[in-house]
Amino acid sequence: MPKQVDHHERREQIAAALMRVAATQGLAAVSLRHVAAEAGVTSGMVQHYFPTKDSMMDFAMRSAGARYEARMNDAIAGLGERPSARELVGALLMVLLPLDETQQADARVALAFQSYAATKLSAAEDLGGGNAELRSFLADQIRSAQSTGAAPGGVDPLHAATGLFAMAEGLGLQVLSAGLSTDAAIAALDAQLDITLGPPPR
Amino acid sequence: MPKQVDHHERREQIAAALMRVAATQGLAAVSLRHVAAEAGVTSGMVQHYFPTKDSMMDFAMRSAGARYEARMNDAIAGLGERPSARELVGALLMVLLPLDETQQADARVALAFQSYAATKLSAAEDLGGGNAELRSFLADQIRSAQSTGAAPGGVDPLHAATGLFAMAEGLGLQVLSAGLSTDAAIAALDAQLDITLGPPPR
Repeated sequence: MPKQVDHHERREQIAAALMRVAATQGLAAVSLRHVAAEAGVTSGMVQHYFPTKDSMMDFAMRSAGARYEARMNDAIAGLGERPSARELVGALLMVLLPLDETQQADARVALAFQSYAATKLSAAEDLGGGNAELRSFLADQIRSAQSTGAAPGGVDPLHAATGLFAMAEGLGLQVLSAGLSTDAAIAALDAQLDITLGPPPR
Repeated sequence: MPKQVDHHERREQIAAALMRVAATQGLAAVSLRHVAAEAGVTSGMVQHYFPTKDSMMDFAMRSAGARYEARMNDAIAGLGERPSARELVGALLMVLLPLDETQQADARVALAFQSYAATKLSAAEDLGGGNAELRSFLADQIRSAQSTGAAPGGVDPLHAATGLFAMAEGLGLQVLSAGLSTDAAIAALDAQLDITLGPPPR
């Protein structure tokens, strides 16, 4: 073995194994032993990079979170120069629906982490911070669409944003854990976007 | 020890310990050893009633599910003789919001099971069956409210029902795992019920 081990590469190898275990068997199955077997390295090697179960959880969630963010940025970049509020909000929320296998793997990790956060306050606070930011951005979009007359008024923008965001998460949850079809999820979200923000431009 | 052990009482004692472990530490922590320690009995005794981890999972979920159903029945019974569609749907969906400690404990078990079902097809099919039934009931209520003019038309009742149900589940998820306030969750759900089914009767 060469003296200069490529730390970055080794860490990525272990991280990828960790994500495969989490995505296929849930975070409950993420253990030193399982991850080491999946990565084809020793338990000691895994422990060197991820000393505790919590540090593994944390890594898995940040990793899935970073991919959600990248997908949202890609979705926005694909909209062109001056997207409408309807297009912007729709593109962001569609990212929350686990439509293909990669997205489903990340959604499983996110769901396992949400379940973990439900019993651990500090993790819930982390999730809450990111959620509040997205909710406030959505509320701004709804408020702006209402002010131009594109969206129907009479609905509190923050309540509408809270509900719309929760609907997208709930649809994702049901696709993943209760066999809701992705077509039904997309149709339900689209119908709600029409109601909250007006129909899409033709 | 008397020869005639009270099996029912012992089973309930172990089941209650199992639910306490699941609610406070998540289903991942539900093990023979943990449950036995919590119940103050031997691991062998726990194994007698729940031979496998899957049988524990199954019991915990059925138990939480039965309490959801009882709460929904109570909520409907509290509505009087001829509730409007708005009242009926509202009462059913509010049960999905974890508003007090007992409901939060059950919601943690439900969430842990959803996460488990996301990696296990048979569990997802179980959840899916119950969900489809509720969704179809909600769609009937929306359709009926639209036909009497109480609710605005122009929205597909099944899409609206799918979205509304997912919104309630998503709000519950965010209350539990991301620190969304119960007030914000109730306000968002109420606003959506007004939109889908018309304002409540005065």
